[in-house]
Amino acid sequence: MVSSHFSDARINLSHGGGGRAMARLIDNLFIKHFANPWLEQRSDNAVFVPPPGRLVVSTDSHVVSPLFFPGGDIGSLAVHGTLNDVAMSGAKPLYLTAAFIIEEGFAYQALEQIVISMAAAASQAGTPIITGDTKVVERGKADGVFITTTGIGVVAEGIDISSERAVPGASVLLSGSIGDHGMAIMASREQLKFASDIVSDSAALHDLIANMVAVAPAAIRCLRDPTRGGIAAALNELAQQSGVGMLLNEAAIPVQASVRAACEILGLDPLYVANEGKLLCICDADAAEPLLQVMRHHPLGRAAAMIGQVVEDPGHYVEMITDFGGRRIVDWPLGEQLPRIC
Amino acid sequence: MVSSHFSDARINLSHGGGGRAMARLIDNLFIKHFANPWLEQRSDNAVFVPPPGRLVVSTDSHVVSPLFFPGGDIGSLAVHGTLNDVAMSGAKPLYLTAAFIIEEGFAYQALEQIVISMAAAASQAGTPIITGDTKVVERGKADGVFITTTGIGVVAEGIDISSERAVPGASVLLSGSIGDHGMAIMASREQLKFASDIVSDSAALHDLIANMVAVAPAAIRCLRDPTRGGIAAALNELAQQSGVGMLLNEAAIPVQASVRAACEILGLDPLYVANEGKLLCICDADAAEPLLQVMRHHPLGRAAAMIGQVVEDPGHYVEMITDFGGRRIVDWPLGEQLPRIC
Repeated sequence: MVSSHFSDARINLSHGGGGRAMARLIDNLFIKHFANPWLEQRSDNAVFVPPPGRLVVSTDSHVVSPLFFPGGDIGSLAVHGTLNDVAMSGAKPLYLTAAFIIEEGFAYQALEQIVISMAAAASQAGTPIITGDTKVVERGKADGVFITTTGIGVVAEGIDISSERAVPGASVLLSGSIGDHGMAIMASREQLKFASDIVSDSAALHDLIANMVAVAPAAIRCLRDPTRGGIAAALNELAQQSGVGMLLNEAAIPVQASVRAACEILGLDPLYVANEGKLLCICDADAAEPLLQVMRHHPLGRAAAMIGQVVEDPGHYVEMITDFGGRRIVDWPLGEQLPRIC
Repeated sequence: MVSSHFSDARINLSHGGGGRAMARLIDNLFIKHFANPWLEQRSDNAVFVPPPGRLVVSTDSHVVSPLFFPGGDIGSLAVHGTLNDVAMSGAKPLYLTAAFIIEEGFAYQALEQIVISMAAAASQAGTPIITGDTKVVERGKADGVFITTTGIGVVAEGIDISSERAVPGASVLLSGSIGDHGMAIMASREQLKFASDIVSDSAALHDLIANMVAVAPAAIRCLRDPTRGGIAAALNELAQQSGVGMLLNEAAIPVQASVRAACEILGLDPLYVANEGKLLCICDADAAEPLLQVMRHHPLGRAAAMIGQVVEDPGHYVEMITDFGGRRIVDWPLGEQLPRIC
């Protein structure tokens, strides 16, 4: 009943002031929903005993607009986005931290909805949010709420996944259809009627990755979640960091019909549109089939496909054989097609 | 010479777009100045082997306004603030992460100055910034730049410092004068001529704490850096979390004359003004003198003083014997005296 006190309330500067109002906000909102023994200590830090092994850490600020979109909101996205960056090292995520920058006047109920969504995503992933921070800035100095999460995970022995390990001959796998997240955001931002059935793919991928690692621990060379800049940016990064080229097969890249239609109308290329629940995997060629089988048995990898291979190329280009049999370069995204996508 | 390309440039949305502009910004700014092998891998995460022991993690968003102030800037503050939250568990800080939310149109040179300042602070503390994130939001949707840092540290065996461990009879130590940071921000914000010599105390306190822990590892019960809400908020939090009261001695609390004068003119109470390079320590009474001696030998603790003691009080009040011999309650800060102080 404590939070009903806030039900028609708005965040004001005192909620970031370090005093009683902030303490109440932390108690009635964050500690209540994130409920775990670390937060209940009401300290500015959290102490934990790590399991043996290498640790991995990743951090992401989330500034998505709008805050609520089909398939998620900034809260679930802030959990999934950071967990995925941790998981791309092959790690098992363990803990999260969350820092909120809130605009004065933001509705308490919207904030609570976001926190509940974060709590559900963190709970589903088994990664408690063990410490955090709250800042409030004046009206007009932010845009609703920004959330920065940091994730910590542990990497098992024998796993060596990094963006420098792609080699010619390796296979390029993709876990499912591309462009869903970016087009869901665009559709809700522009209120596109024709795209109203597009839903963000926002999801935590570590469980899918755990299954993949279990079947071929040594054969997985690179993992990357193609977020901002889509698979075009992610594959160009991997090509550059590994000093190789890539040759993709357009016909093999899954794109949902509604996403393809929306992209055509807006003049966007799905290769450049953000995803939040997909992964690219570069693996030894002989492990491609077993990995695809495992991926297709997981709810987040049902449409997994081999979309190309790594080739030798001193220019480190990503090229693609098009649906029409031609060949084109898939260049880095140059500008910003879709700001505030995550 | 790469960065001269940017010298009169401003940040635009493409710098957060995941494409070539963002990759160049990361290379020419963050990797250049934060220079360490983790960042040079250009991954979305960083892998490290933790030393044996309990780990501690803390996160803070920094939204200070103005971005540059006497004694520091948002960059050094973002390092010190988070390192201090880590160090308040008695930990040795090991690593930092940094996430930037930048407003479109922000001057590249100002950003570089901030990054250089962060790099210097992190280097001085021996804590590399091993992974990060960059987001850009449209003009008017943020305020220059916000920086969220997360710190990871390791706690040595035998140290048990937490905000629930204050007991009646324990001593309350303060490492130096209060209100310097808050009043330096106020003075630069309001362009107060009479307060132009006030300098922020922003500093990393882990080295001072290491010296304290070395002399009395088991006698230190609580450590807290009195930031937002000043020592009034910090002591009320400790009193509530430990279920005790506090009795302070106003005459013993160091306040610089210029800070006291500025507070009087602005109608502020220095007890409620933020600090960024001070700590409160609650320790067993017999360890107070040895700890004060060690503190006074450290550059960040020269004016260390015993300012009161923990008492039994079912109401968990912080009370103070005033300079005039009276007794008053030092209540929680209710509202927000000084927004955007950190």
